[in-house]
Amino acid sequence: MEDLKTVADVFTAIKDMHVRGAGLIGATAGFGMYLAALTAVGQLDSLSYLKAQAEFLKFARPTAVNLAFAVDRQLEIIRRFTDSANLIERVKKSALDIADEDANACRDIGKHGVKLIHDLAKNKSGNTINILTHCNAGWLAFVDYGSATAPIYAAHAAGIDIHVWVDETRPRNQGARLTAWELEQAGVPYTVITDNAGGHLMQRGLVDLVLVGSDRTTYTGDVANKIGTYQKALAAMDNNIPFYAALPSSSFDWTIRDGLTDIPIETRDSDEVRYVQGLSNNSIDRVLITTPTAPVSNFAFDVTPSRLITGLITERGICAADETSIKLLFPEMQQTHG
Amino acid sequence: MEDLKTVADVFTAIKDMHVRGAGLIGATAGFGMYLAALTAVGQLDSLSYLKAQAEFLKFARPTAVNLAFAVDRQLEIIRRFTDSANLIERVKKSALDIADEDANACRDIGKHGVKLIHDLAKNKSGNTINILTHCNAGWLAFVDYGSATAPIYAAHAAGIDIHVWVDETRPRNQGARLTAWELEQAGVPYTVITDNAGGHLMQRGLVDLVLVGSDRTTYTGDVANKIGTYQKALAAMDNNIPFYAALPSSSFDWTIRDGLTDIPIETRDSDEVRYVQGLSNNSIDRVLITTPTAPVSNFAFDVTPSRLITGLITERGICAADETSIKLLFPEMQQTHG
Repeated sequence: MEDLKTVADVFTAIKDMHVRGAGLIGATAGFGMYLAALTAVGQLDSLSYLKAQAEFLKFARPTAVNLAFAVDRQLEIIRRFTDSANLIERVKKSALDIADEDANACRDIGKHGVKLIHDLAKNKSGNTINILTHCNAGWLAFVDYGSATAPIYAAHAAGIDIHVWVDETRPRNQGARLTAWELEQAGVPYTVITDNAGGHLMQRGLVDLVLVGSDRTTYTGDVANKIGTYQKALAAMDNNIPFYAALPSSSFDWTIRDGLTDIPIETRDSDEVRYVQGLSNNSIDRVLITTPTAPVSNFAFDVTPSRLITGLITERGICAADETSIKLLFPEMQQTHG
Repeated sequence: MEDLKTVADVFTAIKDMHVRGAGLIGATAGFGMYLAALTAVGQLDSLSYLKAQAEFLKFARPTAVNLAFAVDRQLEIIRRFTDSANLIERVKKSALDIADEDANACRDIGKHGVKLIHDLAKNKSGNTINILTHCNAGWLAFVDYGSATAPIYAAHAAGIDIHVWVDETRPRNQGARLTAWELEQAGVPYTVITDNAGGHLMQRGLVDLVLVGSDRTTYTGDVANKIGTYQKALAAMDNNIPFYAALPSSSFDWTIRDGLTDIPIETRDSDEVRYVQGLSNNSIDRVLITTPTAPVSNFAFDVTPSRLITGLITERGICAADETSIKLLFPEMQQTHG
């Protein structure tokens, strides 16, 4: 357990991935702005101070839009109530709201997504439904339930016979370390595979559905998610396997049309690739898998173009990954963008 | 260094990957049959004995066809000269031939492949040519030069400005551990990436050519290679990037039409995925990246269908990945198969 007491603590916790996953980053950032508000009392120009803190926080993870979403939402509260005596209370309440909404959204994603799995199960007449997932979009990434895993947990709870292929998800192995652990706890059958294996499994008919999360989705349906997602989408398309991204609407970026050109892709420390962390003699250790000075590139995300995506599972329902369908589901965004 | 003194030593060295890579497996197996022949002297039915040894050796790596190729070639010598006084000498000579032919084939693959890189460089008017490779098909995998790396070394020697993206190649990290080291020794600029990253780099225009080896290629142009190759081929196709497999003709399987259904795919020990080996405090250690009992699947190869392959680079030249083109280059195979 780690107590986050300052905005700098929150920044570090997000950047160094003590908290990670779209939803959890958003919720943590909401509370980060609350901590900022606490220290703003007595500042000469508290609004400018808080704006600066907001910009600072956003730098922690440039791709994850939930971060910017939560910070901007808090900044809006701050702007509106900056002279109010109970500003702090309002910001705190809003931070709690962000966390609650995330939990509710993921629960509803589960409700909608499970229908998809149910239909697949019906057509496969009683055989196991094999779902492949990449990275961790489970309850370790959100306040509760998770996005991509919510339909999985709902399907398991509904007694549908499922099995999950868990991509290990290099370089940080969130699949092998987090998703596998989550599924184990929940009693959902799973198998860990290397990131290289998914295509082969799909060719052999061993995958019925690919289900991933999203760190940012354009209003045209392009999905930024953990690096390697794009390769899985290509393999799914090549083998006629449905590929869905599950996301609370807080992961939509209503300002970006072209994900490939306009979503900023975070690059992270080279040592994340050079070293692999794990257990050795019951303590956490790391081993060096390259030479210590090997040149390394470490992009954290990639963008899957909407043409490869069968659909998006949101808290309001499932829609095709295109502008018209997305705006039909979120009509209030029709007016403000595009 | 490890001395292989018996057929069992050779079997273990191949199976546990003390020697690895298509060419080197073939060369080692050739000498394995020589060791078998040494012990056959005095056996009641030496031919049956050697046939059994041959079958045993082939089990070491089911996908790599160079193994079967070398073993069968030796068995043919043994069959023809079984009563000859100098059988042992003939089998030894044949083992040396297999190794020499591999070295010569790789050198010629380099000669033909470098033209390809030269043409890319001409069209890019002086800019760096970025080549992505998967696994290790370098001189650590062959007797000399390597297959996929032969054109790279030849291009570097010819002064062409190249840079290599090295897939780390989970689970055994042959890219991060072997290819990176080879390129470093040769002074070829390179960058190590996770297996997840290639698609993203291709989307961004950062890859000009994908160049891989092959463990078995059908006469119709389907290529079995290290698991994950198929996903790279899909990404190359999606981004109009040429994708070539480099292979000595000993990697062709002239008996298989459909690679997807008929090439046996080796599965390996789950602990290769669960544990990652590397350096810790200057000694080799391994860390556990899943729970100790996490279910794991570990397919070692996948098959890239010919439709995704721009061409094959062989010791006789470059050809399209289709039956007609392949048999035009190897007309002596026209008569015997298909």
